[in-house]
Amino acid sequence: MPTNIDTLCINTIRTLSMDAVQKANSGHPGTAMALAPVAYTLWRDVLNYDPANPLWPNRDRFVLSIGHASMLLYSLIYLAGIRDVRPGGVSNDRPALTLEDIEQFRQLDSLTPGHPEYHHTAGVETTTGPLGQGCGNSVGMAIAEKWLAERYNRPGFTLFDHHVYTLCGDGDNMEGVSSEAASIAGHLKLGNLTWIYDSNHISIEGSTRIAFTESVHKRFEAYGWHVLELKDANDTGDMRRLLAEAKAETSRPTLIIVHSIIGWGAPHLAGTAEAHGSPLGVEEVRETKKFYGWPEDRNFYVPEGVPEHFQAGIATRGAAASRAWDELFRAYRAKYPDEAAQLDHIFAGTLPEGWDSDIPVFDADAKGVASRASSGKVLNEIAKNYPWMIGGSADLSPSTKTHLTFDGAGDFQPPQWGGTYGGRNLHFGVREHAMGSISNGLALYGIRAYCSGFLIFSDYMKPPIRLSSLMKLPVTYIFTHDSIGVGEDGPTHQPIEQLAQLRATPGVTVLRPADANEVAEAWRTLVQIRDRPSVLALSRQNLPTICRKTYAPATGLAKGAYVLADAQGRPDVILMATGSEVGLIVKAAEKLKADGIKVRLVSMPSWDLFEAQPKAYRDSVLPPDVTARVAVEQAAQLGWDRYTGLVGETIVMHGFGASAPAGQLEVKFGFTVDAVVAAARRQAGKPA
Amino acid sequence: MPTNIDTLCINTIRTLSMDAVQKANSGHPGTAMALAPVAYTLWRDVLNYDPANPLWPNRDRFVLSIGHASMLLYSLIYLAGIRDVRPGGVSNDRPALTLEDIEQFRQLDSLTPGHPEYHHTAGVETTTGPLGQGCGNSVGMAIAEKWLAERYNRPGFTLFDHHVYTLCGDGDNMEGVSSEAASIAGHLKLGNLTWIYDSNHISIEGSTRIAFTESVHKRFEAYGWHVLELKDANDTGDMRRLLAEAKAETSRPTLIIVHSIIGWGAPHLAGTAEAHGSPLGVEEVRETKKFYGWPEDRNFYVPEGVPEHFQAGIATRGAAASRAWDELFRAYRAKYPDEAAQLDHIFAGTLPEGWDSDIPVFDADAKGVASRASSGKVLNEIAKNYPWMIGGSADLSPSTKTHLTFDGAGDFQPPQWGGTYGGRNLHFGVREHAMGSISNGLALYGIRAYCSGFLIFSDYMKPPIRLSSLMKLPVTYIFTHDSIGVGEDGPTHQPIEQLAQLRATPGVTVLRPADANEVAEAWRTLVQIRDRPSVLALSRQNLPTICRKTYAPATGLAKGAYVLADAQGRPDVILMATGSEVGLIVKAAEKLKADGIKVRLVSMPSWDLFEAQPKAYRDSVLPPDVTARVAVEQAAQLGWDRYTGLVGETIVMHGFGASAPAGQLEVKFGFTVDAVVAAARRQAGKPA
Repeated sequence: MPTNIDTLCINTIRTLSMDAVQKANSGHPGTAMALAPVAYTLWRDVLNYDPANPLWPNRDRFVLSIGHASMLLYSLIYLAGIRDVRPGGVSNDRPALTLEDIEQFRQLDSLTPGHPEYHHTAGVETTTGPLGQGCGNSVGMAIAEKWLAERYNRPGFTLFDHHVYTLCGDGDNMEGVSSEAASIAGHLKLGNLTWIYDSNHISIEGSTRIAFTESVHKRFEAYGWHVLELKDANDTGDMRRLLAEAKAETSRPTLIIVHSIIGWGAPHLAGTAEAHGSPLGVEEVRETKKFYGWPEDRNFYVPEGVPEHFQAGIATRGAAASRAWDELFRAYRAKYPDEAAQLDHIFAGTLPEGWDSDIPVFDADAKGVASRASSGKVLNEIAKNYPWMIGGSADLSPSTKTHLTFDGAGDFQPPQWGGTYGGRNLHFGVREHAMGSISNGLALYGIRAYCSGFLIFSDYMKPPIRLSSLMKLPVTYIFTHDSIGVGEDGPTHQPIEQLAQLRATPGVTVLRPADANEVAEAWRTLVQIRDRPSVLALSRQNLPTICRKTYAPATGLAKGAYVLADAQGRPDVILMATGSEVGLIVKAAEKLKADGIKVRLVSMPSWDLFEAQPKAYRDSVLPPDVTARVAVEQAAQLGWDRYTGLVGETIVMHGFGASAPAGQLEVKFGFTVDAVVAAARRQAGKPA
Repeated sequence: MPTNIDTLCINTIRTLSMDAVQKANSGHPGTAMALAPVAYTLWRDVLNYDPANPLWPNRDRFVLSIGHASMLLYSLIYLAGIRDVRPGGVSNDRPALTLEDIEQFRQLDSLTPGHPEYHHTAGVETTTGPLGQGCGNSVGMAIAEKWLAERYNRPGFTLFDHHVYTLCGDGDNMEGVSSEAASIAGHLKLGNLTWIYDSNHISIEGSTRIAFTESVHKRFEAYGWHVLELKDANDTGDMRRLLAEAKAETSRPTLIIVHSIIGWGAPHLAGTAEAHGSPLGVEEVRETKKFYGWPEDRNFYVPEGVPEHFQAGIATRGAAASRAWDELFRAYRAKYPDEAAQLDHIFAGTLPEGWDSDIPVFDADAKGVASRASSGKVLNEIAKNYPWMIGGSADLSPSTKTHLTFDGAGDFQPPQWGGTYGGRNLHFGVREHAMGSISNGLALYGIRAYCSGFLIFSDYMKPPIRLSSLMKLPVTYIFTHDSIGVGEDGPTHQPIEQLAQLRATPGVTVLRPADANEVAEAWRTLVQIRDRPSVLALSRQNLPTICRKTYAPATGLAKGAYVLADAQGRPDVILMATGSEVGLIVKAAEKLKADGIKVRLVSMPSWDLFEAQPKAYRDSVLPPDVTARVAVEQAAQLGWDRYTGLVGETIVMHGFGASAPAGQLEVKFGFTVDAVVAAARRQAGKPA
């Protein structure tokens, strides 16, 4: 065995990774083997991180965007001795990962799942696996760091000055989302961000020469990045030097291109696609260990002194830094109690007092207001009282009405562009996908992030929406222009299936408010939801503000669906709708009532909130014995049968929209009072 | 008025665009005004296009990726005098667009919708609007041109040598999909492709300096593109020179960066975001016309001689070229009748004889085979007999089993990388979004395109899937690893809501076959569908091959759902499932049958095909009076209530998956014979 302790540490990472994948008979050994020296250098010698306090707010962040190389991260977490974190805080009882946990790699309910999962394993800063997402997240983290520093640092009190490191690969760098994220990071001059790019020239189909021959180096320079190259992934000295250069460059993000050999050390599989996503095989593992000078028959072997040496770097450095920070924060709290209290909220993910004190109530108004516009008002009234609520749009804020306009809101821009990092309006550019991924990064810092675009373009950002939910992050997605109400822009811009796809996504709260007061209640509701993302689907067109003296109060929204108006006794028919179509069933009900038909009106702004209610409530809104039902929504039918049953009717979109003034589209596609009345009469057994 | 006829033509384009937007009170005037000289130069002086024959196969293609500038394209189509195309071919009776059509811009059922729509307006080569998609489509078109040239050109018979031009903007170039597409285009050295990038420094939120300050020039050089700059969009002479340079560079794609002023000529709005997406206003229109030297009060004014001068360029050049091509093709047909017959099929979108002659039948097999694997076999057997079926994967073909392995299939690679443009296996790299967009471009040429990835990553490519459907393109999306059956890779890689979102998308045929013979029938069915995309959802894990002597034949798949096995008389309960879960209900039924419970088994591989059947058939499969029903699918519940009704049960996924061996996940999430039996007994009113 080599006697050099650094080499022992590096080979421990390699062999733990190989062994875990081999035992699971599933996983990705090659990248962990190749990058062990790089990751070791970063963690042991550079990363400002206290394993005893994995929640320390000013810790450097490490993002493994190549999530399939999860064993690399698990090995680092184990060797660093990171303590476990459970609800309530850091555990002193146990480490985040034991050797036994690593032996349970990819097994049911283990702490070492196939891809790293935030909230599941302490030390994992974000859930990765879907390529490019970690890159986007890390840009959000770097923005968050800049924002926190600008907002909360004070002379003599540098609370925030940490760095964000991302390990990414060829796959990440082929994905469009990382291109978007890199472009905006370059624009924002995020000098606190370093991506370490593992250039191993191997992808699943073989050499990258079959599909990826661009100059990544020149591309990142074009984005305004500082680009460095590590000629040999095994050269830890050079890596240390490059990391120092990266840190020293504070006005640009840095890309370090690492030239590596996947599966380094494996006699037959190194440098091949076969080393990427499959166990090496027992014999190849043995021969690789031999090459490393490792005991060939020992599995999950950690030589004496290895964790100690690893921790003598990261833990010693990190403990001193985090203790000093705690001291600093104590003094800061004494001098700046309000700011410290805000930071407490940010770190805990809790709400500021009075956040809802200025939520407006809207007067009844037949002409009404577009829900995107009422939302813009409510958002501003909340954000004004919620200082760490920040967000923006993918170049659509004049349309989505998400710009914060109150004094001091400002734009987030680097000083070099004449702005400040303390601004609260983010400009994502026409980059929906990165916008979602960046918002997840912001939320991981406790910042209350929102982002916005047209509902149709939620298609461009589905992967980060899903990850918001998987990570239980309260990102607010504000999607306007939510139906054929878009009008003239036509079918390319008119969402049909988007509501269904968001409703089908586990853990996403979808809210489609019917009028300005439901918008206010939607915001009131979603802000209080701190463990999952919310989607607000809002109209381009005006929606009448319902008279809440005549109709039930909008607070019913909190239960997902509620009876807006009812007949005396058992209704002949239930009319239900969401968003812009609630106004339509209200009008139809007036006509039906005049004709002596007993109608119950149900507003259903959120199916998932409704499904979370007790059965008794759900049955009180939709009594099982009243099967005469009509649902109206300018969207795909999928899912409505749950509420209309086998005999009810739906008035929905059965295909794509069209380009014309919105009013004419309503007629073309059958969203008229007459159509609703006719359906209701059929259902009630009283055809006209 | 200016007397220069070129200026008159250019200003006609500008004023038609301004007037149409103003009259519609909706639309995007500024870009058309800015780019009129560029588009005029390209169309009048360069584009090889015969307006009398818009279907001429060797025509240059023009893609307006900035689809919001639709009036620019409509003006060009009108001035060029493109003939209309309807089912059956080119119309001699009427032009594609009249001045009256342009006056109906953005009106109900007009030929001039808000964004250009393929199939709707002759001369529109692809539907655009969602940014970046046209860029991706154009890469697919350029690939198609290269492929057709390599496969069908013969010495002395250069049937294919045309060029693809794309007009794109800042928005396109911020989108990740265009980055992906540009990277692969550079790799493939598509010298037949030119993107003209309108760099006007304005986006909807204002100056691009707030979000987009990278060097696009250097970025494209990094991709291996040839990059040129046009200093002044109004300099038509320089533009002609640059277009000649672009065409002369045959070994790289070309980017021409055009420096323009949005809304050029508008005295108050030029160079502002206000000129982008709203009518200029009556007064500004008037003053702009004054600036152009135009009659201020005339709307939709086309000065005498303008169409004639425009057509003297494009139509004269195009007619000669297309006539010569027709001659050439006649001679080609005489010498190469087989190849000509293939081209006839490609141009008509029809199938070759014998395409299905080698589709295998699979023997019953309890161990079975993964549907991704049986699909790989069937695909190869079909593609072998379907010479213009080409496709590939986003770096996952070893996993999706989509590589064509028969003799002569080959890889599509440029000669410079030692390959040939005649290969049938495309390597998209880890670029799902561009893969979909490129596949649409291939399909627009009549090539039968397929592409593949993991079902979870359909999230990365939803926008082009939607556009396949909107354009009625028969792209085949092969998505494997379609459930928690993925196993150890865990929740980031296990689709839950993806089936629902694809089913909700209008016009997409989703097929989730249950075994190898359903896979064969799925392919047989989808290949015959020529007017919409299909999605194949396939398993990673083995699925038993059902004994079709005992159970109904797999040909039932063509109807979307069919009775796989039935009880004597009225069933006590209906069990239904798709894909990998059909094997589970088959096992449960055996147990229930042994217990004397009468079970009907329904395999439901395709909801949309089932919904397209007559009610009598649907009722014969799911009799309305049998409401005791259990549906089983390892996916989100959304949509299943349509078949289970208000009283049936579903065994589905209620949240995200987990990382563990697949068999253990089935137990964890309740997909067991016992669970199905218990639900069936409850439904049948015979609990154990």
